[in-house]
Amino acid sequence: MINLDLIKQISRPSSTRIVLLVIDGLGGLPDPETGKTELETARTPNLDKLAGKGICGLSDPVGPGITPGSAPGHLALFGYDPVSCNIGRGALEAVGVDFDLGPEDVATRGNFCTVDGAGLVADRRAGRISTQNSAELCRLLDGQVINGVEVLVRPVKDHRFIAVFRGEGLSAEVGDSDPQQIGVAPLTVNGSSPESGRIASVANQFIARAKTALAGHHPANMLLLRGFSKRPEYPSMSDIYRLKPAAIAGYPMYRGLARLVGMEILETGAEIEDEIKTLTQNFAKYDFFFLHVKAADAAGEDGDFGRKVAVLEELDSLLPGLTVLQPDVIAVAGDHSTPALLEGHSWHPVPFLLSSPYCRPDKVDKFSESACLSGGLGRFSATQIMTLAMANALKLNKFGA
Amino acid sequence: MINLDLIKQISRPSSTRIVLLVIDGLGGLPDPETGKTELETARTPNLDKLAGKGICGLSDPVGPGITPGSAPGHLALFGYDPVSCNIGRGALEAVGVDFDLGPEDVATRGNFCTVDGAGLVADRRAGRISTQNSAELCRLLDGQVINGVEVLVRPVKDHRFIAVFRGEGLSAEVGDSDPQQIGVAPLTVNGSSPESGRIASVANQFIARAKTALAGHHPANMLLLRGFSKRPEYPSMSDIYRLKPAAIAGYPMYRGLARLVGMEILETGAEIEDEIKTLTQNFAKYDFFFLHVKAADAAGEDGDFGRKVAVLEELDSLLPGLTVLQPDVIAVAGDHSTPALLEGHSWHPVPFLLSSPYCRPDKVDKFSESACLSGGLGRFSATQIMTLAMANALKLNKFGA
Repeated sequence: MINLDLIKQISRPSSTRIVLLVIDGLGGLPDPETGKTELETARTPNLDKLAGKGICGLSDPVGPGITPGSAPGHLALFGYDPVSCNIGRGALEAVGVDFDLGPEDVATRGNFCTVDGAGLVADRRAGRISTQNSAELCRLLDGQVINGVEVLVRPVKDHRFIAVFRGEGLSAEVGDSDPQQIGVAPLTVNGSSPESGRIASVANQFIARAKTALAGHHPANMLLLRGFSKRPEYPSMSDIYRLKPAAIAGYPMYRGLARLVGMEILETGAEIEDEIKTLTQNFAKYDFFFLHVKAADAAGEDGDFGRKVAVLEELDSLLPGLTVLQPDVIAVAGDHSTPALLEGHSWHPVPFLLSSPYCRPDKVDKFSESACLSGGLGRFSATQIMTLAMANALKLNKFGA
Repeated sequence: MINLDLIKQISRPSSTRIVLLVIDGLGGLPDPETGKTELETARTPNLDKLAGKGICGLSDPVGPGITPGSAPGHLALFGYDPVSCNIGRGALEAVGVDFDLGPEDVATRGNFCTVDGAGLVADRRAGRISTQNSAELCRLLDGQVINGVEVLVRPVKDHRFIAVFRGEGLSAEVGDSDPQQIGVAPLTVNGSSPESGRIASVANQFIARAKTALAGHHPANMLLLRGFSKRPEYPSMSDIYRLKPAAIAGYPMYRGLARLVGMEILETGAEIEDEIKTLTQNFAKYDFFFLHVKAADAAGEDGDFGRKVAVLEELDSLLPGLTVLQPDVIAVAGDHSTPALLEGHSWHPVPFLLSSPYCRPDKVDKFSESACLSGGLGRFSATQIMTLAMANALKLNKFGA
């Protein structure tokens, strides 16, 4: 079991630098014809070289058999218990679009949807209207004040948006209005605790007003809210690890997660090349970098085995731009597996490698699922990755007398 | 997670014998030139033979990435949770010099130091005065009674000593007088709880009197106290495991730790040969032996790769003196790694082997870090070693109906 209090006691600042390269959805499953996973199919000479010098293993983000969402997958990599530190859907969506969520705000994830003449849900996604169209509708609904509570509405992507309720003493202990099926009416928001009457009332009034305002905007003539939640309060990475941590992530969701654990967010582009350029420019200024590569997961989600292979090969070809900086510790990890075969996240353990002058190298000289299985780290919890990286960077004092 | 209550429920006395051979600082890191660790470099035919007949693995004393001190490293080997059973610096130092620490005593670790004319610390170690000199100064300060509290002062080594406050109802919840830096005045001992006023007052009076008494003894003209702590109360090994356990250790620190878990301490010499002789002479009288070999750790701490190799080879050559006794279970373990490359304890997992007629042997036939990685025990927590030894000695009943 991880114990962040213990780590906090023994962390010490030092001049060494750690790069945690997270390849989203890294792990895969074999192509039924070749018997090789995406990573085993890709030509990755630079990752293989790093594996040869380093120590490898297979990491479990939450536990064997558990498929993690993006939040638990990343929280585990940052050393936080992904179960007790779980984050609500609405709050994650809000921090994921760089929304500055206050500690008292209640965030929800919204869908524009289509209701029929009888008020029953006909399409939960309003025909997946464009992000631009969605943004116009958000402006229509944004900024209302209901019973002293301000409602902030921002577009996310396609038919998805966030609605954030800002006021004092609001509870998030209410159920969804989204019935998660068609042919039924949207649900009334109901409180599950005595304190939740106010937020339920405000949310229901907001939904009623929205129904009126959207009436003429078919197919987006109604909305559904779910995942009422507040921003979780995590101890910061600088507090626990005494690091000066920076995040380099082209996608907003991962910047949002990094912000929740107190990382500084560096401006960067959407491509791997942009991210490595950002790393290079900022390398002297921080002692910990979280560098996030999204495209492998996106290809896996699309079930595109070949594209995932291509992303891994592209990353590998750009890796010398990272290794030339000579970080004291390089850790290459994934937040979870995303096998093209499953077209989604999966529970399979994730290849991991750590390279440092003090890592006690194993005999693995190929970065792949099957090779990492016999690595020196064995099969281990992803929550131990930060402790290992800190130890190898000589940033942890001895525990106990 | 270890569960000593469970083990206690199923332990049964029997005539079988266990020897737990602890090679302090056993694990290492490869020499950058040869790629081999100390243990991989050493010629150890007897350990290899034992590995060939036994089952091997790599043990984590506290957890991946955590570098243990001597106390947590050994407590884990004895089956105790090294985090919750942690011991204070002062108490460890006291039990480490065979001081008979009572349950109400508050022990501190002291340094003789040098202060300048303005009372600021000029040298925290008083020029590392000799143990003999230190012993004389301890006699000067020993035996005072302040507000009904007796203060016992004993030399440790060089400038280091212990001061033990003996009285009823004393709290140990106070901070250090040692500022851990030079150029500042020693700190006033301050209580961190309402109950700690008395010990703080006594400690401050003791320090003031010591300053007067030491005034003419430059460079040792002052002292610093740290690590106020009481003796931890652990359940004894005979209570948990129903063993009659004995400790054979040439160094006082390890005798002290063994005493804390209720082992009987056998008189022995400082050399491995002496310890094996003591084992032989007492073999009929006990059913569990903790045999501690210090020299490997000392060589690692000194950064002396070659000497560590030589210690391991010496131990190996003496091993037949142990195996000829035919213990039912032989477990060879380390309390932590001490790679010569790092000149100190480290976080790396430690080679382990267990030999018994019932151990289900693996294919490992060399006792080394890399060979143990593919051993039948895999990578596991050192707190499981006692349970494994007990099981292999047929000293554990079936659990559950």
